[in-house]
Amino acid sequence: MPRQNPPDTHPARLSLISRHLAPVYPINTPYTVERLPDTIDTSLLPKTQSRSFSASPSKMTSQPPHPTLLIPGPIEFDDAVLQSMSHYSESHVGAGFVATFGETLFMLRKLFQTSDPAAQPFVLSGSGTLGWDLVAANLIEPGEDVLVLGTGYFSDGFADCLRVYGANVTELKAPVGTKPQLPEIEKALSEKRYKAITVTHVDTSTGVLSELQHLSALVHRVSPDTLIIVDGVCSVACEEIAFDAWGLDGVVTASQKAIGCPAGLSISMFSGRAMEAVKNRKTPPAAYFASMRNWTPIMQNYEAKKPSYFATPSPQLIHALHTALSQILSKPLADRFAGHKATSDKVKKAIADLGLKQVAANPDEQAHGMTAIYLPEGVKGADLLPILAKKGVVFAGGIHKEIATKYIRFGHMGVSALDPKRTDIDHAIKALEEGLAECGYKKE
Amino acid sequence: MPRQNPPDTHPARLSLISRHLAPVYPINTPYTVERLPDTIDTSLLPKTQSRSFSASPSKMTSQPPHPTLLIPGPIEFDDAVLQSMSHYSESHVGAGFVATFGETLFMLRKLFQTSDPAAQPFVLSGSGTLGWDLVAANLIEPGEDVLVLGTGYFSDGFADCLRVYGANVTELKAPVGTKPQLPEIEKALSEKRYKAITVTHVDTSTGVLSELQHLSALVHRVSPDTLIIVDGVCSVACEEIAFDAWGLDGVVTASQKAIGCPAGLSISMFSGRAMEAVKNRKTPPAAYFASMRNWTPIMQNYEAKKPSYFATPSPQLIHALHTALSQILSKPLADRFAGHKATSDKVKKAIADLGLKQVAANPDEQAHGMTAIYLPEGVKGADLLPILAKKGVVFAGGIHKEIATKYIRFGHMGVSALDPKRTDIDHAIKALEEGLAECGYKKE
Repeated sequence: MPRQNPPDTHPARLSLISRHLAPVYPINTPYTVERLPDTIDTSLLPKTQSRSFSASPSKMTSQPPHPTLLIPGPIEFDDAVLQSMSHYSESHVGAGFVATFGETLFMLRKLFQTSDPAAQPFVLSGSGTLGWDLVAANLIEPGEDVLVLGTGYFSDGFADCLRVYGANVTELKAPVGTKPQLPEIEKALSEKRYKAITVTHVDTSTGVLSELQHLSALVHRVSPDTLIIVDGVCSVACEEIAFDAWGLDGVVTASQKAIGCPAGLSISMFSGRAMEAVKNRKTPPAAYFASMRNWTPIMQNYEAKKPSYFATPSPQLIHALHTALSQILSKPLADRFAGHKATSDKVKKAIADLGLKQVAANPDEQAHGMTAIYLPEGVKGADLLPILAKKGVVFAGGIHKEIATKYIRFGHMGVSALDPKRTDIDHAIKALEEGLAECGYKKE
Repeated sequence: MPRQNPPDTHPARLSLISRHLAPVYPINTPYTVERLPDTIDTSLLPKTQSRSFSASPSKMTSQPPHPTLLIPGPIEFDDAVLQSMSHYSESHVGAGFVATFGETLFMLRKLFQTSDPAAQPFVLSGSGTLGWDLVAANLIEPGEDVLVLGTGYFSDGFADCLRVYGANVTELKAPVGTKPQLPEIEKALSEKRYKAITVTHVDTSTGVLSELQHLSALVHRVSPDTLIIVDGVCSVACEEIAFDAWGLDGVVTASQKAIGCPAGLSISMFSGRAMEAVKNRKTPPAAYFASMRNWTPIMQNYEAKKPSYFATPSPQLIHALHTALSQILSKPLADRFAGHKATSDKVKKAIADLGLKQVAANPDEQAHGMTAIYLPEGVKGADLLPILAKKGVVFAGGIHKEIATKYIRFGHMGVSALDPKRTDIDHAIKALEEGLAECGYKKE
């Protein structure tokens, strides 16, 4: 009983209080905890609320005025998506919600460009990181070899997660700002039989883009039994991913990046071959909540519009994802990818015009949904980011342990990159130029 | 820099479309899949949308008309909580959100009635089920013994989860509708040294309430090293839990039950003793996303209002939880528990007056946030539940594998149980009486 429900397109009429401005400080990760003081300088915290921004892009939405969030996820939301978060309470096994969840899973097949009925989408409550557990606890058995292509903080994290579940991990690490190259990957694949290879499509720590099509062709040629697993957290819905055509076996992502839905969902697609690997494990999956065996019948039932239960999903987040996917699929995906590339080109040209360098130096290795920008000599992120926040623009600090204090990150995904009614990107470029000048930077 | 922010109390002005009515069908779990036909009878699915309910309780809110959700979670939401779900996008490491998350963690200490600084709250994106993984992957090492008090579907699930991570599980099972009794628990504890004992405070499959205070005293007396772990998914915020006074070591719960926040958050509290057990493991935690070692510094940083990152939380869900907890803590907790008991007494009296029996037969073992009701001879849940849905009331079907088709579940938590402006419970009781009559039932 397929349903043809239009996405919620009613204008949001929200009356949320703009509680706090939100300057961003360098984050305090396990890697960076040592370099941060015990206490944050609270003089940077906003003392009073303010609703006035000289050129706030949020005027173009019905959301209350707020600084524009241009970090590499979460991103700014479309009004209808945000409105869907306030959907009244529904049973997770009621016919209405089951239909919504089923349609959502079906739309993910379109987003990932797969028409193979053996491919299986999963949507679970969780952070994007949970996708690593899905791969590590289900596709890999203890002692099996995995080749991890090292591009930065997030490939390191994937490797850590794989080791937790007993994988024997080989990391092929590239220098900061680059990616492992095909000849060295071919060499590595020819030296050992790997159960899987993992690639971080866009490493959010560096803005390095990995190329999937030729990589996948190489793996299929040199090591045809090796599963090809993509961390697509910062790439799905802004970089092309042709799941079937490129012969991928797994793509894991999250809701809050280019898909443009609030955070809280782990989203993934696995090939029939990957599903067979789960089925044929000698040992049971090594996790319970993250067990694909527990979730597979549930996802298949939802997609067949049959009520089903393993653990309670979040109806509100699923509604928001349904709205986001409906919007994405209302236009050709090729246009969406081209739109992100055009915005990215504009940002990268502006960065170069400002005399700044990117962490990802090679144009072929630069992501299209974010840009990691080296700070000029003498300018500190801890000074610049609060200045940008005062101008209504929120960028992110560095996260790669080797260069964390030396760069900032500018996210340009979703409505901020694509909606012609929004001036987020122009405003952010102008704010960056002014902020750098206020920090004493002059282009040489 | 503590903040005194009032909860969002602005009236919600939502314009969501009432897309579907939501009748509930027997759910298709791994346990019940064999007893259900391959396809659901689609004649039960609503063919047209309707916005008129003869006595819709949702008229008392600013939410669009919809059937009142009276299943044992998710529950009906307060307008301000639902409104918080549409909070504009914020950085997960921005000062505003960090303060909100920090306050949320602090409020959880109040809700669990702990003032021990060594106790540690966790809030992760995930379903309530993820709490089982937290316990199984962090507190228990492979080969260690765990005593599981068997009360139904959910204690079975906890046992399954523990086994996945290598625990040696002993299940002390009680007959359906009852709980293991103290003398047999004492006997079991004296026969083996258990690392932990788990108790499902309210087993959502049967409505059986377990008593924690005397149980905990027994464990401390007979087996003082044994960690006392409570599955509080269907009890936190409607049944009293005195974490410190009763000497509990872990309580895991979810956002969508008596706390009254939308689903999508795993919420837990662990004692200093439990945290020591995690610290002193001989083997690393057996999960990555569910690793308490990965999350502990993050939770501590958030509570100290310091930005921190391991995986991206869901700002919108955290805002909703913040609002829900602010509301709960604005009144004495004792009043909240007494209010749930009063509503429960009313429901249970009405059930008895209708000549119906509860799955939990013993009044001392009956939960106060839900009631599991045996259907009269000749009345099928598959007939009754859609009739109730047409009357604007959504109940849940059975889930305990031994009696699944023989009973239904009526949830009475949160605003439906406590808000004097709502008539949800009276309306539901009337609908049940009428629905049973329409199914041919006459009280003997």
